[in-house]
Amino acid sequence: MFELLKTDAHTKARLGRLSTGHGVFETPVFMPVGTQASVKALDPRELRDMGTQIILGNTYHLNLRPGLDVIRAAGGLHRFMNWERPILTDSGGFQVFSLAKIRKVKEHGVEFRSHLDGSLLFLGPKEAMEIQRVLGSDIAMVFDECPPHDAPAREQKLAVERTIRWARECRESRPGGRDGGQQVFGIVQGGSNPALREECARALIAMDFDGYAIGGVSVGEPEAEMFKAIELTEPFLPAHKARYAMGLGTPAQMLELIARGVDMFDCVLPTRVARNGTAITRRGAFGLKGGGYKADFRPIEEGCECFACKNFTRAYLRHLLNVNEILGLRMVSLHNTHLYLKLMADVRAQLAAGTFADFYREFIANYVPSRKVLSARQREIER
Amino acid sequence: MFELLKTDAHTKARLGRLSTGHGVFETPVFMPVGTQASVKALDPRELRDMGTQIILGNTYHLNLRPGLDVIRAAGGLHRFMNWERPILTDSGGFQVFSLAKIRKVKEHGVEFRSHLDGSLLFLGPKEAMEIQRVLGSDIAMVFDECPPHDAPAREQKLAVERTIRWARECRESRPGGRDGGQQVFGIVQGGSNPALREECARALIAMDFDGYAIGGVSVGEPEAEMFKAIELTEPFLPAHKARYAMGLGTPAQMLELIARGVDMFDCVLPTRVARNGTAITRRGAFGLKGGGYKADFRPIEEGCECFACKNFTRAYLRHLLNVNEILGLRMVSLHNTHLYLKLMADVRAQLAAGTFADFYREFIANYVPSRKVLSARQREIER
Repeated sequence: MFELLKTDAHTKARLGRLSTGHGVFETPVFMPVGTQASVKALDPRELRDMGTQIILGNTYHLNLRPGLDVIRAAGGLHRFMNWERPILTDSGGFQVFSLAKIRKVKEHGVEFRSHLDGSLLFLGPKEAMEIQRVLGSDIAMVFDECPPHDAPAREQKLAVERTIRWARECRESRPGGRDGGQQVFGIVQGGSNPALREECARALIAMDFDGYAIGGVSVGEPEAEMFKAIELTEPFLPAHKARYAMGLGTPAQMLELIARGVDMFDCVLPTRVARNGTAITRRGAFGLKGGGYKADFRPIEEGCECFACKNFTRAYLRHLLNVNEILGLRMVSLHNTHLYLKLMADVRAQLAAGTFADFYREFIANYVPSRKVLSARQREIER
Repeated sequence: MFELLKTDAHTKARLGRLSTGHGVFETPVFMPVGTQASVKALDPRELRDMGTQIILGNTYHLNLRPGLDVIRAAGGLHRFMNWERPILTDSGGFQVFSLAKIRKVKEHGVEFRSHLDGSLLFLGPKEAMEIQRVLGSDIAMVFDECPPHDAPAREQKLAVERTIRWARECRESRPGGRDGGQQVFGIVQGGSNPALREECARALIAMDFDGYAIGGVSVGEPEAEMFKAIELTEPFLPAHKARYAMGLGTPAQMLELIARGVDMFDCVLPTRVARNGTAITRRGAFGLKGGGYKADFRPIEEGCECFACKNFTRAYLRHLLNVNEILGLRMVSLHNTHLYLKLMADVRAQLAAGTFADFYREFIANYVPSRKVLSARQREIER
């Protein structure tokens, strides 16, 4: 179902195409995140107009609210939220290990208390696959264990063992996907341990999943460790399957990961920071609420073709953000998401033209990383 | 600038047309409220697509944030918020008397403390007209004194005296408007006192304003008193000028007021209640968050042509509202505003066809008022 169209001559970047029951999408691709059946602040028309090819939904959240009965009655997630294009659903593994209170890891899954009302719930490979079957996503993810980046070695090893065992249980419950139905992606864990990453990747590949995700990234690790985790995993992944780096990243990080052979991305960053008034551009991010933009009548980003930049000034959006008008965070969410999608479209065009390496170099040179990323890099140098 | 096209044979309803520097609008008209230079949760494209002819902005709020310097630098309110069609601005009188802390009424205006930071400010006829000149609205309102509905008779009388004096000061500072520039509307006060209403109306009409508003309504009074205030005022207003009932009302109330000779309306109700999950229909309002809509896959209102009803179900919107997704309140705001605008379009068509009286009777018979309105009516009966 994944077609590798071209591999870059100078980097590991790949141009590809993935076919699903709800249509084809091209890679590299960015998937806006619709955790609770809505990409925060945006509507489906806006998403389509921006060229969104596929969005992400969350098993953990959707299972809690509105609950499976409602989505089943609606005829699946696509119909429930009125989104006709592909959807990938996360398995809930990440959320169980990050959001849920008081959890108890068992043989066939995790017993935990809901982060909403404390009710006792159980999620494991069998349950996660069944929920995703009802959601009717085009790509389901296996149920994995995702430890924090600073988990001790023993815990990382146990997590890999469980992740492999649970992946097998997921695969057994859904052997197909080749008939235009739901595809299933495996998730490689292993932290920054080369042996664990290799072990996990090899075991999953033997199960012949429809694609492979690199998990255990975007869990609080410094940027350098994140790149390392990707580099430790990618060489083992088969060229003819899609590779997905979960929960990443900034525009510059996505380019770095594309150059390292990654095809698919999802990230809450563009919409999350927008709600705090942070606009993301090709030169880096900036806080629109600052007094400096009070009478700045330029668009968020010169040359940007998004609805926000074509219609509104920084001065106006700054005002809206400062007086808590919803249109402010809507428009910054829209701009940021548009930037991510347009960047991926540009990358695909550069790959097709054989000019990706130059584009990549220039983009990184012009992008000013956030202070958080910069200070992490500084700590790395000082070590 | 106002053309009276037709008067209904059975009621006092009127079909009209008002020309401004930013185009013509037809009456009866509903003006969505953009207090802080944004109709809450909606964007200008959505407003245009729904057939919004004119919106309202607020002198008091815009003068505080973003401040006049910013709007002047932007080239006026239309350009600041990217709205090309007509704008009416309220004078700030209502807000000074309802929002501001610690106020001191003086000869030429009101000294008050900002409801935001407590800073000492002064707003009077001269200031309000100057601010509205800079905002560049198509219709400016005079600076009036708007007492609460239960203010003692003496206070109502003083308010009318000041309102007349301040209206004259406003008129003197802006004698024109007849050249396609900013028009100025007078505001009739006087509570539910027939003599005061008449005195105020006659005095204002002698000043020959471009239109007349009925103020001192939507200030907490029971519905019956509101109708009375309109009925006490309308007979004195000239037929060839537009009449505007400020801050009103529910769909049924607007129809009642149209039948009593009112041409223009503004109200925060459709967007304010939307943010609490209340949808307004032609049969009354209902709270979408209720469990009864959990698996209700009908649109908010059958037959409605708004973007929300064409794209989403009650079940989906209920879910979004309950998990605090912005798309939920966006879509209910959109539906409610669309309903108000479409209702006015229907009223105009009925007036043109000479069938308004039947439409009006049927609409009122089918509309279930809110519990608040119903219990106020009950109290009236019991008195």
